[in-house]
Parts: sequence; structure tokens; C-alpha cells
Amino acid sequence: MKAVRIHKYHEMPHLDDVPEPVITGPWDVIVKVGAAGLCRTDLHIIEGQWDPIQNPTLPYILGHENAGWVHAVGSAVSNVEVGDTVIMHPLVTCGLCPECRRGNDSHCSHSSFPGLNAEGGMAEYMLTNARAVVKLDPKLQPRDIAALADAGLTAYHAVRKTIPALHPGTHAVVMGAGGLGHIGIQSLLALTPAQITVIDKSEAALELASSLGAHHTVLATDDTDAIIKQVHEITGGGAHVVLDFIAEMGMELLGPNLIRNQGDYYVIGYGGMVKIETLSIISREINVIGNLVGTYDDLVQLMTLTAEGKISLHTSVYELGAYADAINDLDNGRLVGRGILVP
Amino acid sequence: MKAVRIHKYHEMPHLDDVPEPVITGPWDVIVKVGAAGLCRTDLHIIEGQWDPIQNPTLPYILGHENAGWVHAVGSAVSNVEVGDTVIMHPLVTCGLCPECRRGNDSHCSHSSFPGLNAEGGMAEYMLTNARAVVKLDPKLQPRDIAALADAGLTAYHAVRKTIPALHPGTHAVVMGAGGLGHIGIQSLLALTPAQITVIDKSEAALELASSLGAHHTVLATDDTDAIIKQVHEITGGGAHVVLDFIAEMGMELLGPNLIRNQGDYYVIGYGGMVKIETLSIISREINVIGNLVGTYDDLVQLMTLTAEGKISLHTSVYELGAYADAINDLDNGRLVGRGILVP
Amino acid sequence: MKAVRIHKYHEMPHLDDVPEPVITGPWDVIVKVGAAGLCRTDLHIIEGQWDPIQNPTLPYILGHENAGWVHAVGSAVSNVEVGDTVIMHPLVTCGLCPECRRGNDSHCSHSSFPGLNAEGGMAEYMLTNARAVVKLDPKLQPRDIAALADAGLTAYHAVRKTIPALHPGTHAVVMGAGGLGHIGIQSLLALTPAQITVIDKSEAALELASSLGAHHTVLATDDTDAIIKQVHEITGGGAHVVLDFIAEMGMELLGPNLIRNQGDYYVIGYGGMVKIETLSIISREINVIGNLVGTYDDLVQLMTLTAEGKISLHTSVYELGAYADAINDLDNGRLVGRGILVP
Amino acid sequence: MKAVRIHKYHEMPHLDDVPEPVITGPWDVIVKVGAAGLCRTDLHIIEGQWDPIQNPTLPYILGHENAGWVHAVGSAVSNVEVGDTVIMHPLVTCGLCPECRRGNDSHCSHSSFPGLNAEGGMAEYMLTNARAVVKLDPKLQPRDIAALADAGLTAYHAVRKTIPALHPGTHAVVMGAGGLGHIGIQSLLALTPAQITVIDKSEAALELASSLGAHHTVLATDDTDAIIKQVHEITGGGAHVVLDFIAEMGMELLGPNLIRNQGDYYVIGYGGMVKIETLSIISREINVIGNLVGTYDDLVQLMTLTAEGKISLHTSVYELGAYADAINDLDNGRLVGRGILVP
Repeated sequence: MKAVRIHKYHEMPHLDDVPEPVITGPWDVIVKVGAAGLCRTDLHIIEGQWDPIQNPTLPYILGHENAGWVHAVGSAVSNVEVGDTVIMHPLVTCGLCPECRRGNDSHCSHSSFPGLNAEGGMAEYMLTNARAVVKLDPKLQPRDIAALADAGLTAYHAVRKTIPALHPGTHAVVMGAGGLGHIGIQSLLALTPAQITVIDKSEAALELASSLGAHHTVLATDDTDAIIKQVHEITGGGAHVVLDFIAEMGMELLGPNLIRNQGDYYVIGYGGMVKIETLSIISREINVIGNLVGTYDDLVQLMTLTAEGKISLHTSVYELGAYADAINDLDNGRLVGRGILVP
Repeated sequence: MKAVRIHKYHEMPHLDDVPEPVITGPWDVIVKVGAAGLCRTDLHIIEGQWDPIQNPTLPYILGHENAGWVHAVGSAVSNVEVGDTVIMHPLVTCGLCPECRRGNDSHCSHSSFPGLNAEGGMAEYMLTNARAVVKLDPKLQPRDIAALADAGLTAYHAVRKTIPALHPGTHAVVMGAGGLGHIGIQSLLALTPAQITVIDKSEAALELASSLGAHHTVLATDDTDAIIKQVHEITGGGAHVVLDFIAEMGMELLGPNLIRNQGDYYVIGYGGMVKIETLSIISREINVIGNLVGTYDDLVQLMTLTAEGKISLHTSVYELGAYADAINDLDNGRLVGRGILVP
Repeated sequence: MKAVRIHKYHEMPHLDDVPEPVITGPWDVIVKVGAAGLCRTDLHIIEGQWDPIQNPTLPYILGHENAGWVHAVGSAVSNVEVGDTVIMHPLVTCGLCPECRRGNDSHCSHSSFPGLNAEGGMAEYMLTNARAVVKLDPKLQPRDIAALADAGLTAYHAVRKTIPALHPGTHAVVMGAGGLGHIGIQSLLALTPAQITVIDKSEAALELASSLGAHHTVLATDDTDAIIKQVHEITGGGAHVVLDFIAEMGMELLGPNLIRNQGDYYVIGYGGMVKIETLSIISREINVIGNLVGTYDDLVQLMTLTAEGKISLHTSVYELGAYADAINDLDNGRLVGRGILVP
Repeated sequence: MKAVRIHKYHEMPHLDDVPEPVITGPWDVIVKVGAAGLCRTDLHIIEGQWDPIQNPTLPYILGHENAGWVHAVGSAVSNVEVGDTVIMHPLVTCGLCPECRRGNDSHCSHSSFPGLNAEGGMAEYMLTNARAVVKLDPKLQPRDIAALADAGLTAYHAVRKTIPALHPGTHAVVMGAGGLGHIGIQSLLALTPAQITVIDKSEAALELASSLGAHHTVLATDDTDAIIKQVHEITGGGAHVVLDFIAEMGMELLGPNLIRNQGDYYVIGYGGMVKIETLSIISREINVIGNLVGTYDDLVQLMTLTAEGKISLHTSVYELGAYADAINDLDNGRLVGRGILVP
């Protein structure tokens, strides 16, 4: 089969002919890939940034946001059948470690991460396991939802954690209305009655945010004092929750100033360093909340909202063979919405 | 191997010679049984009460509270090794259904229940799976802890749910200080700062309760008004939480009268029918909380407390071959503490 | 001033001329009444049903759902000013007892209940205190929102408690789409992503429910087995939460059969008696949840949703002097929506 | 009456003769002071550090940890009577603002803070209000418990928030076993089943920690790598919760390295600056939790535990007139336990 494999860091991946995966274990599932999302993390992989963290053996197939149809199953698989439309949780988990037993599978002690440290989904077929596949409403098309597998899941997981803090009359601030942020906005609207204020450097992103239902928007400029002032005016003294989908380039220093006393600053993006005086942390009794991907149950819930029409993705579709165009377009800011590769 | 099998309802089970179980699936685990608890439920099984609910095929091996040492494992088992001391969760669960995925495995859609609808543990060896075994501190002896697998787990599960309601200054009432209740008292002391009042018809049970650390005891007589009055005096107007380990013979009608406004009445035992005026439910804003066994994670926590010396069981040990004596002793009220069969 | 006072049970109240209330305590607030809701509870008061519970001294002024404008304030009142539009929490609470200190003021140990055991709001002016008044967006009109003070508050309070159980993909069933139920439906839509199924005996009530956004409706007939079957089909095996706004005339026996394992049956209406086998409670691990009015904070949240246009009431307005017409219309089923008296 | 007043920053306060406070408002309470705690914050006040934050008018009476007996009450006070033993919550709150209404009174919008911006308790009598006084078991002596009003309350509040994270088998690490920390250790033991590891630079403090029931101790040296290694060994990969009662002098940089994935780092002390890479926050999904004093309800719970003998303070008692000795002893490290001034 055709597959996009990385052979060497800092080089464009190749389109290779490789053997199709085969079932060897009782819980194995082979999926005929319907769509694989292209993500900024793929650029970082090519740049070698993830090598020391994930230690993959080159060459391997990229693609960590995948959806398709079940092609074959192992002897013990009971939750999906051949032909089912499925989206794949980004982690292949064990089901036996303490975190898996608590439903907290995104912290599984024995997981693999296809596309980062195992063969991914930029190919015709992909090997995963029964615990990673979410059976979908057949009316959902893989190309429309593949990018929810990672980007959407991460945004949804963070928003779900905010529910107890966001009752009527509260304010949520979303920093960054890009790939994750625009799912975050839709998730907030689906799960909470909070007023939503979106901050972004791009007018187009703010227009998208408004069209999705955000109540207020603030254009991010270099004048952070002006942003703080605007947000405090809109929110009546600071947000109850800030969701920072950027968390670099100074946003991680701005974010904690946008919450009110007892507020929560959610770190979802990464790159910068959070720095807060402990006197400010205690005198305001504020919290910094970390967020990582999401659980299998989070993904099931997100797909339910998607099937109900409450969440939708903006995408640009490429043939699998045109992967290099997609990568170049993403790298050069020419890619509108989320890039999707279709075998 | 030797095994205690039920052949016909209303007849004493037989000690049969049966083949040892063998590994057939990747997640199978065979345990060399160290101890099997004998429980009033076993008497009910012999009486045929569980036949319409669990539909077992006779004959089969009894025993649903089991602990021992791992004897053999299937190809995919990674959480235990041959020789490990283990206790077995009463349910053998799938790991794939929605409830398993949320860590709520006691509501697994595809579970089996050894000793009730599959071969149980009153035998030399027993077949279970990787998801049912909890690896123990090797210093724990199967005969000392087997009965925690079901009776203890059920009590612990209920107590764990009470934690948010039981802060310093609150009152918990335990109805029934028997097999489940005496674990409930120890669990309350380990997990909450509540004042504990125990109600029982037996002076000996109340003495045990006091020796375990209960703060107050009330002897249950037929004068329920007197019980209500005593409990309201001790608790300053009613308990915040009542844990009813009996829930039959009138206790289920008394229990809701022992809680204060906004209180919780936990039903753990069974047999009777709860009857409460809706006007009483709303004007007092009280709750009735159902409880069923416990999750795998509950069992892990309970075993941790046991290893720390915070939970202990009172037992009477019998050789497996003396199972009929044990059954007769239990049926005739001659069995002190929990009966344990040791192969 | 003019006031509707009850002089004798089983007799139509009188329109009396009584002295206006005066400020005597530091936290007193006098409100110029803008609207007073008429409620089935008022009929029950006239029938004498509440006499043994609330022990009021006759004659006294009816009206326990009130809104208006602040007319005068005591020396210590800092949260409202003369002229502010306000809605009144049904209870006048102390702020010192343990429940008040926990924000749980609907269980205040020293509260009074205007319209039930103190002078109510069917008058030109009404005495309350600073802790009972919620300052409103001045664009809200008392006549449009007065009935939220009790009926709306009770529905909202119950729905708010369901939030942790109602994630995407779950099902809520509303029993009764009347005065409370139609606020319950709107609250569910505002606070949760659950699918909503409404059961009512009235086709008109079901049409209202659908127009408000309910996803499914079931006409209640005497064939309860058919209702159970329909609900189990719609919900895929039973609701996660049932909100019973009736809880009498057999609904309280039907309700627990509409929930799935681990489900919650919320009792909000009253009149009947809940009867459930303890074996059913434990084997299904289900809960019965009591509900009573709501807290001050609940009312603030409800008014926020109302100001945002997410909650609206259907009302029929009468002059205060036409109170007898309103009472007769309510008693004879001629009153469409909630009856409102305007001085 | 005699009172210790600060007249000028950087100067020893004076023992002045001042008029006794008088009741002027309906909720006023005058307390005959039984004991006033002396705290490092008093030294900081004298050094002028709190001037820009609290803006007090000099001279004023110091003392923000107070207990005694009710001497006089205003007309509306119903929760205490003359002669009652009371401890005073450090804040005098309004009971009307949104946070007070939610039981979250330590974030009251209109509070005063006796001893910091109003007349405090280092005097014979002190003015407070009905919302600040907690009625005590008369067997408690003011000199034994006064320091729980602020130091104890702060520790308890933080520990209470950890309850949901600390089930059997989890690990809590306490950084600093001084005035707050030793109450923290006792609170953890009373409220949770966690294993407790205490880190301190002082051998004597670690001995005290062990005698109170801490399970493990680690001597803090300059070799932070060695501390990290020790804690990871004891906790099996990092603590579930770290409570940092120091949060300065490098502890605030060490603390986040002591938690495991998904762990919580509680900031309670202050002085330093928290610095964490966002990549570390998200890849470990860790949280930083701020903590400030505690609520009135927290203080009630803490006093319940104290009356039950589960919490005790180590103190050194001085006559009020010997305040300068106490201040000098504290400043020079000669004060063992908490300093208490007794009028």
C-alpha cells in the first residue's frame, strides 16, 4: 500500500510502497483509512523536535489524526465489526494499568502513539486496537471529522473540565481561535452557559469565532495592557476561566492577568513558560490547570456532539499523494482550516 | 482437582473431582485458590433464588469471594505474573463497553460472575481474567482477605460515595454491624472524620463495633420510635448519612427516619421495599442512594487499606472438604465471623 | 394599601385596605410590588392544607412569587437601592445559621416564608429583607418574571443538580410540562447537552415542549407499559435522569421504571408515595433525589438566563382587584400559562 | 483598656490606654479577648510591607488571630450570647455579596481585616461582628486555639481541597512543618487516608512531624536533586499532591518537580515566583492550586476537629504587656511553637 513515511529529519517525507498491516493479536483492528489530519505537530516531527521524546525508529508512517472504516479485527474484538465507520483515539492503550482502570486512559502507562512512535495513518491501511476505535454514526464522513481525533479531542477535554466553574453569568476567555480554539468555542457553547470572549491576532479568526457564536471578540495587539483592560471591562473584573490554546509568544504571561480572583488559567497550547509570583497566586487564590489530549470517553462525547451537528470542522482536503503540497501549504500559511489527506 | 459443585437446588453441593481449568484466551488467568469465602448468598443459591436472575447451568462450582496465587497466564496478560498473590474482583469484565471505559466496570455490559453464573472458587484452581485480578502485597494471606472480594468491596464502595457529605461534625449511622457492616465501620474511620453510630439487634455486634472505633451504639429493639429518638439525640437532629446494610425486616422503613434534612439514605442490604411520601422527600430534600458491589479501583483501594492494617476481617477457617460443615454452621448461626474455605 | 388577605379557610380571600409596611430593622427592604404570581399552592392554602405545616395567623396577605421595585431600605442594606428592579427569593433568611453560611440558604434554620407564614406580595407594598432581593436588569418587567421566584426556582434548582450526570449522549426525561416543567425544559437546554424527552397527558403541553426545544415527546395514557416501552426505545434502555414535576397520580410509581441502571429519579412534584423494592435499588444501583425550592444563588443564575433570553414564562395577567377571577380561572382550568396579579 | 498599637513602621508598637469598643450596629459583637496569636505577618506589618496593600490608618491595634468570650452583642445578633467562648474568623464579612451568598466568604467584596486594616485583638476587648464569631465548646481555652484563627485555618482550607485527590494509596508531600505545616499534617491525617511525607530543613521540625503521624520525612538540604530522588522513591514516582507551606527560597521551584503526572502543587506560603514550562504543564497535565485563608465553614470544621482532640497547637504564652519580648523572641528565632499574648 501507499504510505507517507519520514526517513530523515529535516527532509520531506516520501510516498512509499509498504506491506499492508496484518492482524497478529486478539485485540488488533485494521482500519481502511478514510482521512488523516495534517497538524503542526507533523511539521515539528519533521524538524526532529519529537525525536528525543518519542524515540521512533525511522522510517515510519506519519499521521496521528485518523478516521476510516474497519477492515479486519482480531479474535477478541467485540465492539466493532468490519465495515463500521470509526475514528481513532490517538493512543493505543492497555486496559490494565491503574489509569486505564479509572477511565483515565490518556495517562495509560503502556500506550503507543501511532504517527509519533508507531506506524500512523497517512496510508491506505492502519493497525490499531479495539480500545482505540470509536464506532461512529455511519452518516459521518472520515474526511469531515478526522481532525477531531487529536486537535478536537484536546480542546474538548479542557472545556469539559471547566463545566463546574461555568454557571450562568460567568465568563470564559478563549485565547486563539485556530484549529483547537474553534472547537473549544463550539464545545463551550454546547456544554456551558458561559459568556465567551475570544482573543486572536487575526481578524478572520475573530470573524469565524463570532459566526460560531462567541459573544465578544478582542483583537490581540502588542499592547497587552489594552487587552487586559478590554477583557476586564467585558467580563466585569476578569474571566472565571481562561483557555489558552497558544501558551507561547507572551500569551502565557498575559493569560493569568485575564482571570479574576479564584479563576482558572487553562494551559492547552505550549511553547512558553508560565511565571507567576506566589503572592499573586495566593492573594488571588488562582489556579493553573494543565491539559493533555483527552480520554476515550471524551472522544465518544465529542463525536456525539458532532453527529448532533453541534461541532463542525473547517478543512482543506488533499489526495494522499499530494501530501507534500499540503505540508508546504501548512508551513507557508496557505492552508485554510485543517488539512486532511485522503488515500 | 477437588471442587464444590451444586448439582441440584435444595440439595447439599458435592465435592467432585473435575478437570483443572486451562488457558484458552489471551487474557485468561488461572489462580491456585488460597481461600474462598462462604456467604449467605451461597445459601440463597442453593435455595434456587438466584436461578432466574443468573441462569447458571448445573452443575457448577460455587465460590464468589476468592483469593490465591497466579498459576498460569494467557499471552496478553501483563499486570500479573505466576506466583503473585491476588484477590479476584467478583466480576470478569470486558474492558470495551462504555462503563468499563469510564472506570465503572461493576456495570460492565458483558461481564460474567464466577460462583453465580460461571465456575467459582471453591476448588483448587479457578479461571478468571487479567482484568479481575488485583496484585497484592505478598504479606497478605488469602485466607485473611478473601471475603473482602465481595462483602468488603460492597461496603467500601458505599462508604467511598459518602466522602463528600461527611466532613468534621457530621454523623454517619451504620445499620447492621455484621459481615458488611463491620467493614463499613472501618472504612468510615479510614476515609472520613464523621462521628459513627451503629445500630444492631445483637449486643455482641455492638461490642465489636465499639472495639473497631464506632463512637456510639444503639441496640435495635422493636420500639422503632425509641431508636429514632436515640439517634436524633446522638446526632443532633438526624444523621447526615445512613448506611443500611440490612434493608429488610423493617429497617428499610426505619432508615429514612434517621436522616436529617438533605440527608442520604444508602441502601446496601436488600429484601424489603422502600416507601416514602413524596411530600417527605421534597420537604426534607432527602435522597435514597443505591449501591452495588464496587469497581476494580474500589477493590484496589480496599486492599491498600488492608495492607496498611486499617481494615481487618473476623473469620472462621474450614478445609475445603469440610464445606458441608461450614454451610451447616452458617445456616444454623454457629459460624462466628466470615466462613472461609481453604483447599 | 390594597391587599388580598385570607381570613378563613375554604373562603375566597378579601381585598382589604391595610397599612403599608414600614422599615423597622437594619436589613429590612420594602418593595413596591410589580407582580405577584398565583400558584396552585395558593388554592391549597385556601383549602387549609398548609395550616398545620406553616401555622400562619389569619388574616394575612397571600402571594409567594413576587417581583417589583425597591421602595425603602433599612440602615444596613448595601446590595440594593431605592428604584432597583428586584425579584424576591421566596424565603427571608438569617445569614448566620450553618446552612446560610454554606450558601445553602433554602435550608435556613430561621427563615420566614411570606405568603405562607408571613405577609405576602398580593398587595401594593411588601416587607422583605436584604438577603431576599435579587437586583435585576432594569429591562426585565416584574410581570414577566415574578413566577420565576418560586416555580421557576424550584425547576432550575433540580436541573442544576443534574449537570454532572448529563454529558453528551445522555437522556433526560421530563414528567409534566406545566408551570414548573416548561422552565425545567428550558433550563436543561441552557445547562446541559442532554437529549430531552417530555411526558405529559396534554397534547398542548407536548406541543409547547417541542416548541421550546424538547427532542422527543410521549403522550401519557393509562397504559404505563406503553410509556415505559416508548421511553426505553427513545433513550436506548432508560433515561440517565428523570425529573418528575408531578410525583402523584401514579407518576411516582412510573418514574423509577424510566431510568436506566445508575440513573437518578428526581422528585420535584409531590402527592404520591415512592415505593421501590430494595433489590431493585441495589441491583440497578439507582438513586431517588429530593428537591426543594432553590438557593439565592440559584435564583441569581436563573435571572441571568432570563435576561439573556434563554428562559421565558407564559403568563396571563390580572389586575390585583380581579384576584377572585384569577383564582376561579385557575381552579377551573381556564387559566392559560401562569396567573399574574398586578397591583 | 490596654492595647498594643503600631504608631510608626519600623518601630516597636506601644502599649497604650485606649477606650473600649462600643456596640453601634445591629450585628456588632464585642469580645473580651482571651488570647491573640503573634505571627510572622505582624513582623511584616511593623516593617511596613502590608501598608500599600491594606492601607491602615496609624495608630491601630495589632492582632489578627483572636479568641475569647462574648462581652456584648448588637440587637440583631442571634448566633452567640454574652459569655460564649468564641474564636474569630480573620475577616469581618458582609453576608450580601455574591461570594458570601455562595458560602465563599473569604472572598467577600466588603470585608475588613482586624489587625491588618482595622483594630485587632492585641487588647482587652475587640469589636467584630456576628458573622465572624464561631461559638466553641466551652472546654476549649482561647490560649490553646487562638492561632487556629488564621494559621490553622489557612492550612485546613488547603487540605480540605485535596480530599478528592487523596484516596488510599496516594501520597501527599508537605513542604515545611512549621506553624501552618504542622496543622496541615494533622488535617491530612484527619481528613484523608494518604501517605504523608514531610520535607523540612530542621531536624526538630521533622521529629515533630513524625510524632504527629507523618509516615516519611526528608531533610531538606541544598541538594535538590537528592530531595527529588528521595521523594520519587518514597512516593513511587512523585506525589499526588504537594502542599507548599513555604513557597519561597527555591521551594517554589522544587515543588512542581515532586508531583507525578496529573498531580497538584498547592501554593500556600509565598515569597517566590512559580516558573514552569508550558510543555511540562501540558505533557504532565499538572496543576498549580492557589490557596487563601479559609471560609467560616472551614473554621467551624477545624474547631470541631480541635474539640475532638485531632488537632493541637504548640504554643508559648506571654502576658499582653510582654508583647515586646514576644516580638523580639519571634524575630530572633527564640520562640518555640506559636506565640500567644494573653491580656
